[in-house]
Amino acid sequence: MTSYTPSRDDKFSFGLWTVGWEGVDVFGTAVRPAMDPVHAVEKLAELGAAAISFHDDDLVPDDSTRTQTLERFSKALAETGIVVEMATTNLFSHPVFKDGGLTANDRQVRRYALAKILRNVDLAAELGASTYVLWGGREGAESGGSKDVRAALDRYKESMDILCAYVREQGYNIRFALEPKPNEPRGDILLPSIGHAIAFINDLADPELVGINPEVGHEQMAGLNYAHGIAQALWHGKLYHIDLNGQHGPRFDQDLRFGAGNLREAFWTVDVLQGAEGQPGYDGYVHFDYKPPRTEDEEGVWETARGCMRNYLILREKVAAFRADPEVTEALAAARVAELSEPTLAEGESLADLRAQSYDPNALAERGLGFEKLDQLAMEHLLGVR
Amino acid sequence: MTSYTPSRDDKFSFGLWTVGWEGVDVFGTAVRPAMDPVHAVEKLAELGAAAISFHDDDLVPDDSTRTQTLERFSKALAETGIVVEMATTNLFSHPVFKDGGLTANDRQVRRYALAKILRNVDLAAELGASTYVLWGGREGAESGGSKDVRAALDRYKESMDILCAYVREQGYNIRFALEPKPNEPRGDILLPSIGHAIAFINDLADPELVGINPEVGHEQMAGLNYAHGIAQALWHGKLYHIDLNGQHGPRFDQDLRFGAGNLREAFWTVDVLQGAEGQPGYDGYVHFDYKPPRTEDEEGVWETARGCMRNYLILREKVAAFRADPEVTEALAAARVAELSEPTLAEGESLADLRAQSYDPNALAERGLGFEKLDQLAMEHLLGVR
Amino acid sequence: MTSYTPSRDDKFSFGLWTVGWEGVDVFGTAVRPAMDPVHAVEKLAELGAAAISFHDDDLVPDDSTRTQTLERFSKALAETGIVVEMATTNLFSHPVFKDGGLTANDRQVRRYALAKILRNVDLAAELGASTYVLWGGREGAESGGSKDVRAALDRYKESMDILCAYVREQGYNIRFALEPKPNEPRGDILLPSIGHAIAFINDLADPELVGINPEVGHEQMAGLNYAHGIAQALWHGKLYHIDLNGQHGPRFDQDLRFGAGNLREAFWTVDVLQGAEGQPGYDGYVHFDYKPPRTEDEEGVWETARGCMRNYLILREKVAAFRADPEVTEALAAARVAELSEPTLAEGESLADLRAQSYDPNALAERGLGFEKLDQLAMEHLLGVR
Amino acid sequence: MTSYTPSRDDKFSFGLWTVGWEGVDVFGTAVRPAMDPVHAVEKLAELGAAAISFHDDDLVPDDSTRTQTLERFSKALAETGIVVEMATTNLFSHPVFKDGGLTANDRQVRRYALAKILRNVDLAAELGASTYVLWGGREGAESGGSKDVRAALDRYKESMDILCAYVREQGYNIRFALEPKPNEPRGDILLPSIGHAIAFINDLADPELVGINPEVGHEQMAGLNYAHGIAQALWHGKLYHIDLNGQHGPRFDQDLRFGAGNLREAFWTVDVLQGAEGQPGYDGYVHFDYKPPRTEDEEGVWETARGCMRNYLILREKVAAFRADPEVTEALAAARVAELSEPTLAEGESLADLRAQSYDPNALAERGLGFEKLDQLAMEHLLGVR
Repeated sequence: MTSYTPSRDDKFSFGLWTVGWEGVDVFGTAVRPAMDPVHAVEKLAELGAAAISFHDDDLVPDDSTRTQTLERFSKALAETGIVVEMATTNLFSHPVFKDGGLTANDRQVRRYALAKILRNVDLAAELGASTYVLWGGREGAESGGSKDVRAALDRYKESMDILCAYVREQGYNIRFALEPKPNEPRGDILLPSIGHAIAFINDLADPELVGINPEVGHEQMAGLNYAHGIAQALWHGKLYHIDLNGQHGPRFDQDLRFGAGNLREAFWTVDVLQGAEGQPGYDGYVHFDYKPPRTEDEEGVWETARGCMRNYLILREKVAAFRADPEVTEALAAARVAELSEPTLAEGESLADLRAQSYDPNALAERGLGFEKLDQLAMEHLLGVR
Repeated sequence: MTSYTPSRDDKFSFGLWTVGWEGVDVFGTAVRPAMDPVHAVEKLAELGAAAISFHDDDLVPDDSTRTQTLERFSKALAETGIVVEMATTNLFSHPVFKDGGLTANDRQVRRYALAKILRNVDLAAELGASTYVLWGGREGAESGGSKDVRAALDRYKESMDILCAYVREQGYNIRFALEPKPNEPRGDILLPSIGHAIAFINDLADPELVGINPEVGHEQMAGLNYAHGIAQALWHGKLYHIDLNGQHGPRFDQDLRFGAGNLREAFWTVDVLQGAEGQPGYDGYVHFDYKPPRTEDEEGVWETARGCMRNYLILREKVAAFRADPEVTEALAAARVAELSEPTLAEGESLADLRAQSYDPNALAERGLGFEKLDQLAMEHLLGVR
Repeated sequence: MTSYTPSRDDKFSFGLWTVGWEGVDVFGTAVRPAMDPVHAVEKLAELGAAAISFHDDDLVPDDSTRTQTLERFSKALAETGIVVEMATTNLFSHPVFKDGGLTANDRQVRRYALAKILRNVDLAAELGASTYVLWGGREGAESGGSKDVRAALDRYKESMDILCAYVREQGYNIRFALEPKPNEPRGDILLPSIGHAIAFINDLADPELVGINPEVGHEQMAGLNYAHGIAQALWHGKLYHIDLNGQHGPRFDQDLRFGAGNLREAFWTVDVLQGAEGQPGYDGYVHFDYKPPRTEDEEGVWETARGCMRNYLILREKVAAFRADPEVTEALAAARVAELSEPTLAEGESLADLRAQSYDPNALAERGLGFEKLDQLAMEHLLGVR
Repeated sequence: MTSYTPSRDDKFSFGLWTVGWEGVDVFGTAVRPAMDPVHAVEKLAELGAAAISFHDDDLVPDDSTRTQTLERFSKALAETGIVVEMATTNLFSHPVFKDGGLTANDRQVRRYALAKILRNVDLAAELGASTYVLWGGREGAESGGSKDVRAALDRYKESMDILCAYVREQGYNIRFALEPKPNEPRGDILLPSIGHAIAFINDLADPELVGINPEVGHEQMAGLNYAHGIAQALWHGKLYHIDLNGQHGPRFDQDLRFGAGNLREAFWTVDVLQGAEGQPGYDGYVHFDYKPPRTEDEEGVWETARGCMRNYLILREKVAAFRADPEVTEALAAARVAELSEPTLAEGESLADLRAQSYDPNALAERGLGFEKLDQLAMEHLLGVR
């Protein structure tokens, strides 16, 4: 039996704010002390992670100690071999962002938000991050009259266009990734799903520089299928980064460790990421964005980090076994899955030809597709009984 | 007090399948007899509607009587002045479409589906419809292995490209509108939201010819804000058609009459459609796509049709009063709503200027936005107590 | 037009923690300073409220100042005429309660929780509260193995039996009210709905002393109809208290002001509370449990408090007008609503008689019920256009 | 490796309507022909099922052939050894039930419904069923004014009291089981959850004769935890029967085969049924109530039946291994799970003693509970990697 011990080649990455979450929620105060980022880096390295990501406020909350903090942090990176693969700006914790950052009604807030991002983009570049995420959790509204959605999209676009131009100008090796979420903490958030974000990106001045960073739980909070979502994102060439975690459908954002929540969708998620059906997969960092439950002490925190990586490795092995199983190959053929890759119109065929053909819908309707047999095979691979 | 009696100028439109719904559901058989489309047209004309829409199967289910049926139907249109503004293909009722139409794994099914659409596009053009809707309710999957999502999107694109080319070639005055839905009848449906559909359209060969037809309930089944959704669609120039109805959040597709379900969101929906905040509105047909509950006999059916239109007119009046109220103007100013239309960066201002500015986030954070006062004003307009 | 200005007779009540909410959530820090309970009392009195409720920690967070704080607070009550109608224990904010209070796995935590409740029950009695609420927001689990649900219910029952015995013994004029919630902050909370709580109460030693305190949003987070829920609670004689607020279906706990969220259900809620269909209504305090959004400064907070009360008064007036409208009476008769109060079996009729009758289901099925006409009348009362 | 082949001792049972579902839904017509009940019995026997259940209309839809149909059916039972363990009445398919059966506003409909039940209870007794299920899918409303919920509960109680008296009088060995569901096909259904149904039962004249038949998907449609729900039902002694299937949270009723949908909750469900934590388990028939997807032909139907049983057997084995694993025992101890079975107050201890104890909440708060480690162990048993 495999050991499921992660190595650097697995490219696992964690946000500093994940293992460092103190446990403050709407109904309760901190259950764990603040975690020193250097300690987080050392411990994650020990567990087999390859990289970390950070918000500006996670790392350099106080300006006077900024240089010293960064030096100490860079030293830890150098010593452990951990790299910074992604960075992002905290535009949600401080009360100044209560109505959003880039789309706040208050123009001074927007200006401050933009300046805060720019400063941290410089730091991201300095630390070697190649992806810069924007999660606009406070960009939204609780009530219909308070936000002019189209003006907000204009401002969002203005900021993204500015940021792209800045990165080009500075010659930074950075791409942006928008992270959609339907709601919480705002009643309704702008760009609520993978689809809305990709649609928006298409209208930017420099769409090549911007992709998405979809989070498992965020899509599932809208009842959407995450594996389908990232497949569509890959189809558009827009899956620049991922946030893996767990969730139980439409409810508050649970941020469970990867594998918890909808386990079967986790299997299909890994299948898509690994390149199902001969389609190209995802080759970026496998980034976990979750919150160790408040019931855990620090030891429990490391259990969850270990669990995220183990579950990914276990599922990766199972997905490979599923795709290699001859009975699965047979069931896929019976289900005509590959037939969907054949063009509907033959090469050179005219519409007139297609229309002239005689169809017998009743006869066609009688063909069973055997999807359940195929799905049961997948289930049994997942359960480890094949 | 206004009479709220609709006129042709209100451009209300109904699907033949709405008032004609017999009431078959997963758990029960028909509660009402089939309705003659001519009767539907006459009755809707009498109630003040301006237009109708149809699926091929609603109107011409049987080939041998096709010509005669169409003659009788066209006569009714001529006599009542009702126009056909939209048409669509039924790719979901017949068992041949159990795995979808344009993205069925079975290539023969896809070919049949495409031929079926083409035939009805010709009829749509003949009857004067300017919008052709595609709702892909069976394009999806219940299980992860049975559908290669990217191959499915390839086929979807292939079909849309073929259809656009056909319409251009024939010189038809028709635009296509995709109708998203997250699930039901399939476990997960492709292009599940407004956003996913617009993102997809951007990758078509002829994106100008394709927009969306979002349905209130479909977005709300994913917990998404419909008014926000159509505002984004308008921002992209993609709101080619609308389907108004009512829904109670994530659950089965209820297809209630417009106004039932989330009434406050209906208010903001009409606000967006009428051009809130000086933004351009929607000027197409106001189309209702709903199902009169099974508890109703035919008289009850006409009550629901009347209710849809009345509720729209009532809300339109209230939205206008809300926007004209000086106290609202004041509250909007206090909420800095218009300030969001001002660019974040001043004309000619450099990023260096923006970054050089000194910001006091704590002071900025203290500014209250008064959104609740504004929302209470909207509530009181809605309730008719101002 | 009525002024909708509340008076003491309307029996409106607010939790100190509602207007006093500082705005800390999972993603952000406080946006408003702590509010002095005395100030809250004075301001709520000024706005027309009749009563307040409190958690121990809202009022007397620190022991050394306890007596002085209570004296000052009691003086404010006396001066304003505001009464304390309900009290409750905070068993969720402190990290000690991370796995619950009365059902924490850790027995010492349970003991501490019980002692904390008892102490505050004494204070509640001293301040004249007649209802003592228990919201077990941390009583639950994120994972299946960590909580033995039946053992947890044993402990819940043990505590409730102890509390009831204590209140009897002390001669306090206090009844307990359990407040159900499906999830958040725990992944799944015990006693997740009105039904689960009432079922549980029936197995207590002293069920007469325990009822429920259902919150609008908590039921709606499970997609349940709140008006139906409180009607069932009244049927069981268990509606001891209510928590009114607003919510948009299954998602995080929004705690919007009453009226916001599902407005139509708010109408039917007031209808039930006022005694719809000649059924007995609810005559306790009309208690609001909500959170003023983070976008608001203190002035905005008072707007929301005002809004809660105004919306109740507006809906109460509309409900009365609806029930008094002769056209509604007619529609109710057509809908056979009152016929449901007639026993199905006539007095003295035998089952043999009932079975001997000949039924024509097809003929019975043809009777339309006119529910939509009735609902449209309700809608138009709500919208103020009748 | 175990074969996971079911035997009679596993007590698996299927509704005739499950494998016999023709595939009619709101959007489409039948995809499979009607299945002869005798064929269903023979095939289910061959696959290893022990029992079946039926609605009156599944088995004896037409009166003139009733006797002959029953003879043929009884013969099949005798030949295969399959028993009838449960029966139920179809009060939802015929249009006469469009507003419900036992709580229809129309008294004649209620009388017809009651007569229909009584007739089928006689048949159930004749065929040896010991459980009689009532699923009131049409007992509910789409709009607030159309249903007097308390009058409806009075009628529901009247009918249940009549049915219990009838069964006592006839000396039938039958218990009733109510099946809750939150919505679909009605907008909101009465007795929407496990809790609401148990609360209701407590107010019946003969509560011992009535329990519940909770369905996995119905609870999950409300976002409720099914394993928690049946644990509470067992605590009340009310789990008279179960309906196993699969669902993806709040959306339409998917009725997937058992295991599909929320697989981790299926694991905990089997754990509760098998008697987790030394609590008594469930020893009735393991009944599957699901719908083979429309994509399947008859062969696919039998795959789904096989899958339901296999998945139960697989999960049963895994649950046993989980509970027997010494590392799990250790983790359960660390999580203090058994400590919850110790009374909070020691035997003979007074409340004064409990209150006199000095508590250090900060110290108690520091104890980590290790729930995540325990959950990861469960996950790895489920995945078959331990």
